[in-house]
Amino acid sequence: LRTHYSSELKPGKNVKIAGWVDDIRALGSLVFVLVRDEKGIAQVVIKKDNSLFEKFSKLKKESCIAVEGECVENKQAKKKEIIPSKLTILSESSDVLPIDMSSKDVKTGLDKRLDERCLDLRKPENQAIFKIQSMLLYEMSSYLNKQGFLQVFTPCLMGVPSESGSEVFSVKYFDKKAFLRQDPQLHRQLTIAGGMEKIYDIGPCWRAEPSHTTRHLCEHRVIAAEMAFIDDEYDIMKVEEQMIIHALQKLKKDCATELKMFDVDFSLPKKFPVLEFPEIYGILEKMGHKVKHGEDYGTEGERLLGEFVKKKYNSDFFFVNRFPFSLKPFYVMRIDEKPEWARSTDLIYKGIEMSSGGQREHRYQKIISQAKEKNMEEKSVKWFADFFKYGVPPHGGFALGIERMTMMLLNITNIRECVLFPRDTQRLTP
Amino acid sequence: LRTHYSSELKPGKNVKIAGWVDDIRALGSLVFVLVRDEKGIAQVVIKKDNSLFEKFSKLKKESCIAVEGECVENKQAKKKEIIPSKLTILSESSDVLPIDMSSKDVKTGLDKRLDERCLDLRKPENQAIFKIQSMLLYEMSSYLNKQGFLQVFTPCLMGVPSESGSEVFSVKYFDKKAFLRQDPQLHRQLTIAGGMEKIYDIGPCWRAEPSHTTRHLCEHRVIAAEMAFIDDEYDIMKVEEQMIIHALQKLKKDCATELKMFDVDFSLPKKFPVLEFPEIYGILEKMGHKVKHGEDYGTEGERLLGEFVKKKYNSDFFFVNRFPFSLKPFYVMRIDEKPEWARSTDLIYKGIEMSSGGQREHRYQKIISQAKEKNMEEKSVKWFADFFKYGVPPHGGFALGIERMTMMLLNITNIRECVLFPRDTQRLTP
Repeated sequence: LRTHYSSELKPGKNVKIAGWVDDIRALGSLVFVLVRDEKGIAQVVIKKDNSLFEKFSKLKKESCIAVEGECVENKQAKKKEIIPSKLTILSESSDVLPIDMSSKDVKTGLDKRLDERCLDLRKPENQAIFKIQSMLLYEMSSYLNKQGFLQVFTPCLMGVPSESGSEVFSVKYFDKKAFLRQDPQLHRQLTIAGGMEKIYDIGPCWRAEPSHTTRHLCEHRVIAAEMAFIDDEYDIMKVEEQMIIHALQKLKKDCATELKMFDVDFSLPKKFPVLEFPEIYGILEKMGHKVKHGEDYGTEGERLLGEFVKKKYNSDFFFVNRFPFSLKPFYVMRIDEKPEWARSTDLIYKGIEMSSGGQREHRYQKIISQAKEKNMEEKSVKWFADFFKYGVPPHGGFALGIERMTMMLLNITNIRECVLFPRDTQRLTP
Repeated sequence: LRTHYSSELKPGKNVKIAGWVDDIRALGSLVFVLVRDEKGIAQVVIKKDNSLFEKFSKLKKESCIAVEGECVENKQAKKKEIIPSKLTILSESSDVLPIDMSSKDVKTGLDKRLDERCLDLRKPENQAIFKIQSMLLYEMSSYLNKQGFLQVFTPCLMGVPSESGSEVFSVKYFDKKAFLRQDPQLHRQLTIAGGMEKIYDIGPCWRAEPSHTTRHLCEHRVIAAEMAFIDDEYDIMKVEEQMIIHALQKLKKDCATELKMFDVDFSLPKKFPVLEFPEIYGILEKMGHKVKHGEDYGTEGERLLGEFVKKKYNSDFFFVNRFPFSLKPFYVMRIDEKPEWARSTDLIYKGIEMSSGGQREHRYQKIISQAKEKNMEEKSVKWFADFFKYGVPPHGGFALGIERMTMMLLNITNIRECVLFPRDTQRLTP
């Protein structure tokens, strides 16, 4: 249906373009029709004496059209224009659009925009979000692939709830009950137990959180890696750090136009700083935020640590390591000589948690005793732990939230903007 | 934990390897320990006078170990061996393994093997399956990416059942009911309606099929693409065809060893043949398989068409195009002048359906009338169809089953072998 995209027009050529009617401007004896495609906007100019004048004048915004004609250079306006010889209406739009499409500054409420998401998504800044997200994902995957990681798929449906149980969605599974995974981490561990040494898994996770916040979704996606025969959690952190640095550097080059739409510029450190517990308590106390030893620092602490790192290391990224075991699930590995602390890491970006990970416990007896310490039911652990009787190497991994990463990179305030069709406590359509 | 993989050993060097104990062979005053890692197997030779002799002799199969020592060349056996100076047991295995690990010919039943999947997966032929699957996926993605397709995520949870409704899993979603998608196709169409012109989505789909067959799963994954401003369904078929040809050609080069384990060799045509309805009825009748005009050809017909194409065109792949509309969902595009037939395509590989796709109907009025013709409830269609009031370009796509493709490529008889942790009517663990 097209021979050229809007960005590829060359004067003196006969071209055929196709796209959406972005705008129609009548100027007396002239009509300008702007045709938007995925690469930009082309201008079609129709003079009164053109037999298509009336047909073009009556076009509706957001109709899909194909236009054939000659591309000419408008030297005054320094623009390429098309003088049309044929117009095909591929799909006509309504007279009235349910939301304002004209500018990103017009404030239609987010909820209304999400109701009319197919129109909302057509705005250039939304197109940019998903182009960036796609590139980010592709470059992170490519990095892992080049490092010898294999992409795998682990199950979404679990026979037993994967973590706490309270925030899990349940599924009627024939005559049984199944659960939607909260994090594919247990099965990534089992993949390692299955003799695969470096794997990654990209896929959905669900949380039945009844709270409605700007940074939580009921359905989100992670890129999650798991690696065997590690020395300790620092091996994992290095993979994650280098994956992100690689991807963001590529993005800076390949998505410069899109990043500029969000006024985003960044420089990247060669290495992400690491803060460790219990030193973190001291840092926070000095900043006037006292947290009880053994407790979590919360979102305010997260923000303050971000500030601290930005000032001291000029980095938007940093790792938190060695969380209190009391705050973490049964499967994490503790420091043998200081069992209060675990080899658990979070990656923080601009003061917000991006990923969780670290080294996992691979010794059967320890897994069992840690599950007991967490008061877990035997049946929630046995199906998983029994495999650790047959030789499982030291291993670890991380799971990075893809929508969260997009959100923080572009300084977007609501994570729903970073999902094509978000799912939250209130929303299951479109 | 390691300096070298088993495949990287160089005589005269001090090395540290890590892996699983594949086998222990005692030969009087010598013990041979085979250590398996993801790249192969290394042989450790321990003489009686080595202080580690006893420790090595007592190793259990499938324990995880790290071995330091000197790599030497055994010229007689034309093999590199390690003379150990240190042994670390990273994780000890049980005395008794629940399944036989020794050879692919030993017939432990599939069900038992899946129960003990973490041991089963360690077998080299299973490692090969997932390496091939991963490469296949990576190369198909890369192809689409290079063609300008962006990877997106569409929702798994639907507010209304996506297709027939009978084979859908339902989810308790706060005070509402949600459904697991059967095919992310409706949301891919909405992504196109949202102004993105070339997208692909890799992710899970579910079918609550009560039937238990060797080629169906309750949870499987597809790579699905959708493209706007197409001329007709042949544009879609071309993308799918070239994606597969690209991926399989790469595989032939990069996974030669793994393909050989399954005795798989193939040559690829430059183009996949296309069979169309209604001519297909004639072909089948000549082969002695009469199918009533307007009806589906079934698995036996599929097989026969595969035979026909193999003989006539020497191709394992072919497309079936222009299915009877009566067999297809409401959203497909019909041939305007012959509305009995739809622009619906299947890709058949070695006589088995790999993917469905084709051109979709983009005209609002037609969508509504086709849904009525299919006796669909208004509420199952309205949430989707309403977006087509606002200018949606001609578009189409396909969804290719990743496990099915792996299965047919490697001539594996049960699709469960091609999933790390399969889900079927009977199985939700591990």
